[in-house]
Amino acid sequence: MTSAKTAAAWDRVEFETKLRERGRSYHIHHPFNVMLNTGKATPEQIRGWVANRFYYQIAIPIKDAAVLSNCNDREVRRGWIQRILDHDGFEIGGVKDPGGIEAGCAWGSGGPHARGDRGPAPPDPGGEVCGRRLRQLRAPRALAGGGVLVADRALRARDPQAAPRHWPEHYGWIEPDGLNYFRNRVSRARRDVEQGLAVTLDHFTTRPMQERALEILQFKLDILWAMNDAMALKYGVNP
Amino acid sequence: MTSAKTAAAWDRVEFETKLRERGRSYHIHHPFNVMLNTGKATPEQIRGWVANRFYYQIAIPIKDAAVLSNCNDREVRRGWIQRILDHDGFEIGGVKDPGGIEAGCAWGSGGPHARGDRGPAPPDPGGEVCGRRLRQLRAPRALAGGGVLVADRALRARDPQAAPRHWPEHYGWIEPDGLNYFRNRVSRARRDVEQGLAVTLDHFTTRPMQERALEILQFKLDILWAMNDAMALKYGVNP
Repeated sequence: MTSAKTAAAWDRVEFETKLRERGRSYHIHHPFNVMLNTGKATPEQIRGWVANRFYYQIAIPIKDAAVLSNCNDREVRRGWIQRILDHDGFEIGGVKDPGGIEAGCAWGSGGPHARGDRGPAPPDPGGEVCGRRLRQLRAPRALAGGGVLVADRALRARDPQAAPRHWPEHYGWIEPDGLNYFRNRVSRARRDVEQGLAVTLDHFTTRPMQERALEILQFKLDILWAMNDAMALKYGVNP
Repeated sequence: MTSAKTAAAWDRVEFETKLRERGRSYHIHHPFNVMLNTGKATPEQIRGWVANRFYYQIAIPIKDAAVLSNCNDREVRRGWIQRILDHDGFEIGGVKDPGGIEAGCAWGSGGPHARGDRGPAPPDPGGEVCGRRLRQLRAPRALAGGGVLVADRALRARDPQAAPRHWPEHYGWIEPDGLNYFRNRVSRARRDVEQGLAVTLDHFTTRPMQERALEILQFKLDILWAMNDAMALKYGVNP
C-alpha cells in the first residue's frame, strides 16, 4: 500500500469523488434525522431539533470568522464573509437582511433573551446538550484547516432531504414563517458549495493535504452525527 | 497604593480619560510620522511609508476576523464586520465597494501580485520589514482581548494629523486618487471609534479588566510605534 506521503495527488475529479463519498456518513442518514424528514416526528421532537439546531446556528458566524482570520487571500475572504452576513444579518447602503439567527429566533419565545448569546428557551434544559458540546468542540483551528473546508455543503446541496423542505406537507402545525430560514438556505447553500468546493480543490493539491482535507470533512460530519445521537437519546426515535 | 484586584472600577468618564491619556504615545508623535505630516519627507520616504502601511493594512481584515471569532454578541459582530468589509471590499445587492486594500494597491505596480497576499513592490526589500514584524506580532488573541478593543481609534479620530490630510498641500506630486483611501478613512474611523469605545466602556467593567484594556491598548500603540522606529532607521528622519 502506498503511503500518503509519497503517493501522487488525486486529480480534481478523483479528489471531489473522495469528498463526496464521505456523504455516506452525512447526518441526513441518521435515524433521528430520517424520522424528522419523513413526517414521523412529534411536535416535541421537532421543537427539540429546532432548539438544538439553533445552538448550532449561533456558532456559525464564530466558526466562519475563525476561517476568515486564517485566510490570507482577499478574494476568498470576500466570498466567505457572506456566510457571516447571512447568519448575523446586515444593513449596508439600502440593502438589509435580518439574518438567519433572527429567523431562528422566530421559533423561540421571541423575547430579548432569544436574540443574544442564548437560544430560545428549549423544551427543557436537556435540549441544550448538543449546543454545549458543539461549543467545546468548536476548535476553530481544526475547522479552519488553512482557511478552507466546508465541502460537506457539497453533499448537502444535492440531497433534497438535507433541508427540511417536506416539512410543510408533514407538519401542518408549523407556522410557514418559521420555515423561511430553510427556504433561504437552499440557494445560499448552493452558492456556499460552489465556493467551498472550488477553494478546497484549488488549495489541497498534494496527497497529504488532500488526506487532511478528508479528515477535516469527517470531523465536521462527526459533529453533526454526534448532535443527532444526543437528540435521539434525549427525544427518542419513533419507529 | 491600592492594588488593581481590590480597587473599585473606574466610572465611564474616568476610564475613557485613562484610555485617552495613552494618546501621548500614539504614533503620530513619532519623529518619522511628524516629518511625514509636516511636509518634510522626500518621495522615497513617502513611498517607504506607503509600502509599510500597506502591509499593515492587509493584516487588518485578518485581525478583525479574529476579533469577530471571539465575540459572542451578534449586535457587536454586526457593527464590527464593517471593518472587514471596508478593507476587503464587497458587492452586496446593488451596493459595491472596492475596499481599502484595493485603494492601497493603487500605490503599487497595479499588477496582479499587488492584489494578493503580497503588497506593492516596495522601494526596496527592506521596506517590508515592519510588515513581517507585524505579522509575527499579530497574536490575534491578545489583540482580540475578549472581542473588544480598538479604542486607539478614539485617539486618532480627534487628531487632524492622524490621517495624512495635509499631504495634498505638502506633496503635490502625489496623484489625488492615491489619497482616496485616507479621505474615506476619516468618516469611517469616526464610526469605528464610536463602536470601539462604546464596546470597551460597556464590557470592561471591573478594575482588573479596565487595567487589562489599557494594556491591550498599549500593545497596539507599541506596534505602531515600533513600525515607525523601523521606518526611521530604514528611510531616515530629515531635520
